[in-house]
Amino acid sequence: MFTYLKSIIKRDPAARHFLQILLFYPGVHAVFYYRIAHFLYNIKLKLLAEGIMFWVRVFTHIEIHPAAKIGKRLFIDHGSGVVIGETSVIGDDCTIYQGATLGGVGKGHGKRHPTLGNNIMVGAGAKILGPISIGSNVKIGANTVVLHNVYDNKTIVGVKGREVA
Amino acid sequence: MFTYLKSIIKRDPAARHFLQILLFYPGVHAVFYYRIAHFLYNIKLKLLAEGIMFWVRVFTHIEIHPAAKIGKRLFIDHGSGVVIGETSVIGDDCTIYQGATLGGVGKGHGKRHPTLGNNIMVGAGAKILGPISIGSNVKIGANTVVLHNVYDNKTIVGVKGREVA
Amino acid sequence: MFTYLKSIIKRDPAARHFLQILLFYPGVHAVFYYRIAHFLYNIKLKLLAEGIMFWVRVFTHIEIHPAAKIGKRLFIDHGSGVVIGETSVIGDDCTIYQGATLGGVGKGHGKRHPTLGNNIMVGAGAKILGPISIGSNVKIGANTVVLHNVYDNKTIVGVKGREVA
Repeated sequence: MFTYLKSIIKRDPAARHFLQILLFYPGVHAVFYYRIAHFLYNIKLKLLAEGIMFWVRVFTHIEIHPAAKIGKRLFIDHGSGVVIGETSVIGDDCTIYQGATLGGVGKGHGKRHPTLGNNIMVGAGAKILGPISIGSNVKIGANTVVLHNVYDNKTIVGVKGREVA
Repeated sequence: MFTYLKSIIKRDPAARHFLQILLFYPGVHAVFYYRIAHFLYNIKLKLLAEGIMFWVRVFTHIEIHPAAKIGKRLFIDHGSGVVIGETSVIGDDCTIYQGATLGGVGKGHGKRHPTLGNNIMVGAGAKILGPISIGSNVKIGANTVVLHNVYDNKTIVGVKGREVA
Repeated sequence: MFTYLKSIIKRDPAARHFLQILLFYPGVHAVFYYRIAHFLYNIKLKLLAEGIMFWVRVFTHIEIHPAAKIGKRLFIDHGSGVVIGETSVIGDDCTIYQGATLGGVGKGHGKRHPTLGNNIMVGAGAKILGPISIGSNVKIGANTVVLHNVYDNKTIVGVKGREVA
């Protein structure tokens, strides 16, 4: 826990001290309750696990399916609108910003959400869709749509705004 | 209602059974209350209707103007950040994902939001803006901005992310 | 306050009267509490200020850092998912739509969020990132990513959706 909080202070310049993070970081609350719900889901208390994450979503605006597999020290910063789908897998030390989705493409059963390696940054509003693999140390820019596999150490961005008038 | 729940199980692979959907699907809650608020709005109880949808937004993170016209079996999946504006019209069997907006372009009065046909899929984060028409069986990709009419059976997408480093 | 409410009726065709705006406009609530929290933050009651904005975020889905500097008559319309970072500066008469972010690029300390002039429109889902300057009377389209300075009176947009099938 101590390592986690220290890693957040390192990743978020607006973080001031442990108490502030524990009290006021919805991404920390969401991941904490996800850990409990994930355990309950695995011992087949699925409806209870889903109920916990339903209420976590109401208060944090972050939706994490209790069946998702999430590594150590995931930091969801700001977090409003984040959706992490059922068959998502996330490695260690990832950072996900507000409005990002790890989602499906609306078809298929079984594995239909992305697998992320370690130390990945998913920018605000980015949508990573389908049963694809994102390598370690990848950065994904704000509002970027990712539909294919990405190798390690890459940076993926969409299109910047341009002047039209 | 039975048909509606069955259609959701067909559309969402993460849906397990009716009880789970009724309890934990904010998009189902939001559309349910919208039906009540829409009735109240039409009999001129506007402030009451708006008050209901205000609280629905607080708990579901889905904003539907009570004056919007919505067809049968609309499924708002995940739903955080969805905004459906006052003069929007939505046909039957549409699916709208989190972060999508049916909105205006910030000018004009009267009809200023889109009209959607039947069986449309609006991807996560998509913004459909202005008094435009979207034909039936259209699919709109994640984060896509749509400002013009779209014919039936089309698929509209924005730009996928590209590698820059 | 009277001028503020009048300016909202001018900017939002769905606004009907003062009572409706005061009761049901989360963007009005969020800015109101921000004014209090900003005062408390400046007299070093930082944890209290952050606590107020934490709860404002829970109920309005709008996140404004209490240290941000915001001019007169900011109107946050709809507002779900809006994030305004710690070192942001916003001029007078700006309008910000749902899902927009004034954020950082995930590195650096000190000034790391944008500075906006007067009378700016930030479209739904737009992401303005980094310690950049946006001139007065600028319009930024929906889902646009802005990473560079913008001169006065410009319109900046991303890419519209195109037909692929």
